[in-house]
Amino acid sequence: MLATPKKFTVMAGAAEGPTRLNAFDNALLAAGIGNVNLLRVSSILPPQAIEVPEVAIAPGSLVPIAYGTITSEEPGELIAAAVAIGIGSPDEYGVIMEFSGRCSQEEAARTVEEMARAAFVQRNRPLERVIVRAVEHRVSQIGCAFAAVALWY
Amino acid sequence: MLATPKKFTVMAGAAEGPTRLNAFDNALLAAGIGNVNLLRVSSILPPQAIEVPEVAIAPGSLVPIAYGTITSEEPGELIAAAVAIGIGSPDEYGVIMEFSGRCSQEEAARTVEEMARAAFVQRNRPLERVIVRAVEHRVSQIGCAFAAVALWY
Amino acid sequence: MLATPKKFTVMAGAAEGPTRLNAFDNALLAAGIGNVNLLRVSSILPPQAIEVPEVAIAPGSLVPIAYGTITSEEPGELIAAAVAIGIGSPDEYGVIMEFSGRCSQEEAARTVEEMARAAFVQRNRPLERVIVRAVEHRVSQIGCAFAAVALWY
Repeated sequence: MLATPKKFTVMAGAAEGPTRLNAFDNALLAAGIGNVNLLRVSSILPPQAIEVPEVAIAPGSLVPIAYGTITSEEPGELIAAAVAIGIGSPDEYGVIMEFSGRCSQEEAARTVEEMARAAFVQRNRPLERVIVRAVEHRVSQIGCAFAAVALWY
Repeated sequence: MLATPKKFTVMAGAAEGPTRLNAFDNALLAAGIGNVNLLRVSSILPPQAIEVPEVAIAPGSLVPIAYGTITSEEPGELIAAAVAIGIGSPDEYGVIMEFSGRCSQEEAARTVEEMARAAFVQRNRPLERVIVRAVEHRVSQIGCAFAAVALWY
Repeated sequence: MLATPKKFTVMAGAAEGPTRLNAFDNALLAAGIGNVNLLRVSSILPPQAIEVPEVAIAPGSLVPIAYGTITSEEPGELIAAAVAIGIGSPDEYGVIMEFSGRCSQEEAARTVEEMARAAFVQRNRPLERVIVRAVEHRVSQIGCAFAAVALWY
């Protein structure tokens, strides 16, 4: 089987770039995750995973990651991305939610936190805390906002 | 290398939710796959993989999965998702096809089965059987339909 | 952890098909990667990875892959997909960029090469060479163009 991640890092970043994909690449660099291979997942925090402030992993590694992102080519537009992790008992899994939109960081953070709370209500499980990370970006030419929970080893 | 999956489980589910992502999350729960990390793949059934009725795997695990899904915020709309697995000789790989649309379960099932048949015609291989699973959902506020083939170990 | 790929193969292909997903499936077959499970990544070439002309791996295997693709149902339309790998020192990681659009192969190749160059400028790293692969396709009914860098073992 594929090894279950044991560590997690919450991050966010935003940037401009000469193309949409370069803006995304630059937002990854701003978030500190630009030089690995992102494997996007839908998106559960493994039981007993430990939070680590930064991803310390070799370049080119395969890194499972849950993320929200938005790219805009509308100069002056405010964009935001956010992630939330709902956590109950530390021995049980958590639920990761992602959000992005044409809004402020504050609105993105509030929305994604409600989403994580709803996921716990749906599972009928007690929620102990919610970790939230969000970023906003005012587009100059081509901008990208990115928020993520990397799951690693 | 990454281990090749040895088991597969076919599933479908549908649900409402307070946001689009929560509706998707709730559809995953309805399908029985809500508490693992989905790694979306395009989409081959490994040779000699064995069908198992339910995914029995620890929460937070990384699970390769082929899926079709649709989310709608149009009250009253009928949505459907379907998957098909074309299977020839059990010693050879199968082909998984996914479909979703604004249609009935019956239409989704018929469409996705034709897609699997076409994949075998294209490969010039004899088709022995097609496994199909589909689900439909009448949207109340925000609804999601989800059909999948999970590939596990 | 998940093993870091040690080989890479650059490929491109295009095809028609009876549905959008079948056209994609047929483009994968044309590119030589139709019978494995694609795990899409964002997209770094691991350090010291070795280029191999064709992917020699068992059917159903999980294959990390960076790709650009476009599917069109507009008869007569010209579509193209391209990938580029920016490479500096062979001991360091490279950066993979993907592009697709309604344009010629030549334009797609030029665009994606510029994207890889921009990724190196952003990282303030010297670029030694860029590998580019592109394909174009004139749509008959439903056509797909696909270009990729498969990362394997």
